[in-house]
Formats: sequence, structure tokens, C-alpha cells
Amino acid sequence: MKKLIFLLFIMMLYCCQSALDIPEIRNEIQTILEIQKISWNDGNIEGFMEHYWNSEDFTFQSGNTRLHGWQELLSRYKKSYSGEKMGTLDFTDISIQVLSNDLAYVLGRWKIIQIDSSREGLFTIIFQRMPEGWKIIHDHTS
Amino acid sequence: MKKLIFLLFIMMLYCCQSALDIPEIRNEIQTILEIQKISWNDGNIEGFMEHYWNSEDFTFQSGNTRLHGWQELLSRYKKSYSGEKMGTLDFTDISIQVLSNDLAYVLGRWKIIQIDSSREGLFTIIFQRMPEGWKIIHDHTS
Repeated sequence: MKKLIFLLFIMMLYCCQSALDIPEIRNEIQTILEIQKISWNDGNIEGFMEHYWNSEDFTFQSGNTRLHGWQELLSRYKKSYSGEKMGTLDFTDISIQVLSNDLAYVLGRWKIIQIDSSREGLFTIIFQRMPEGWKIIHDHTS
Repeated sequence: MKKLIFLLFIMMLYCCQSALDIPEIRNEIQTILEIQKISWNDGNIEGFMEHYWNSEDFTFQSGNTRLHGWQELLSRYKKSYSGEKMGTLDFTDISIQVLSNDLAYVLGRWKIIQIDSSREGLFTIIFQRMPEGWKIIHDHTS
């Protein structure tokens, strides 16, 4: 009987999700966005890309284009933003919506100030907690 | 002792999520998209909007604009697509990604054929299962 109780208890622990700590999750994601910004502004595209899910299932949509896979987005950024074109990135109007302990989406505004011009727009990114930490599984930028 | 086992068993049932039925969820969401398309093509914007979360917390991003709340999106659609401007809507390249029993996101391409022109682009919508059924809680359209 004791074994049965123990088994049920373990199963319950396994099944139950821990309490949702929204401020903590928001803090973790806010930190990732800050690190991404610093990486970009250091000219470190790979560092910026580290927080995207390195998978063929990662997707990115912008304008009329859909990309599949981490490598395609890296290539796009390297092509569009090599060297001085990277400029200075900033994020504003950030809104982090926590959906569960392992899922969140973020709305925000990005701006890149280059030497003679600037580009800006809005983004929606979906984060999923992986064994290796929070990763962006989808990005829609306009 | 039996009471304790019963209690643990009930708690386990309460805590455990039921198995994830991805094909069933995809089917439910595909059906909603079909209904939305039919509503739009019947000139029924309210019917189309029925599948958006009727809340101030609903968000919509497009181009450089972020809207807050169901009512703002309804007003945008009524302003941009009244009468003949609604045209004929179609969705293609649909990809439904199920995140949990209650969460999914959908990538797709929309096209509206009007009398003398057409408009098209990509969308990312996030669905959450509410007590009243699946609702779109966020939409990013480009």
C-alpha cells in the first residue's frame, strides 16, 4: 500500500506543472533581448542568433517572405547587415506575454540606426523553453 | 489510507494534462480558418471577427501599427474593407503548429481579390483555447 501511495505521489509530482512565475519568466526573456541587442551592437550576428532555435523547424516571416530554419535567417542577416550596415539596434515598446512555464510571446518595435539612414518596424516573436534555455521558435517582423 | 490514495489519485487526474491530440487540434483550427473565410466572403465582418478574442488584451500588429483590443481591429476592418472592398479572401500555405492542448500558432498567406486589384501578405496568428473555444489572441499581418 505504501508503495502505491509513493507511486501515486511521484506520478503527481511528475504530472503537475510548477506554479507559473510570470515576473521571473518576463525577467528571463527581457535579459535575452538585452543580450541580443548587445551582441548586435558588437557586430556579433552569431551571438544575436544564439537565442533563435537552431532547428529546421524554426520559421521567420517578413513582408512577403517566409524562411524555414535557423541557417536561412542567419544567411539573410549576414547578407542584409554585414559590416557597417549592422548599425545600432534598439528595442522599444516591449510587451512580454507569458502563456505557460515554457511558452511566451513578445511584441516589440525594433530600430536600426545606420550611418546615413535608419530602419524600423514591429516584431512578434514566440519563445519556447528548451532544455538549453529559452529559444525563439518563430519570428514575424514587419 | 484508502482516502489518501483516492485524494492523491484525484489530484493526479486534476494535475495531469490529457494527451496531446495534434491532428484533432489542427483539424479544429483548420475548420475555424475555413469558417472565417466563408464569413468574410459573405460580407460578414462580425462573423469573421467572432474567432478573435473579444478582449482589451487582444493585440494586432501590421506594418508599423499595433492595435489593442478586439474593437480596434473591428474598426480597422470596417474602415478598410467596407462593402465591395471586402472582395474575396483566400488563405494558402497554412502551417498549424500545436504548442499544447490549449495553444497553437498558425502561419499563412492571405489574399484578397477586389474588383480592380488584389492585396496579399503573410500572417502569424496565435490561438488559445478559451472556455468558449479557440480564439485568436494575437495577429501579426504583413
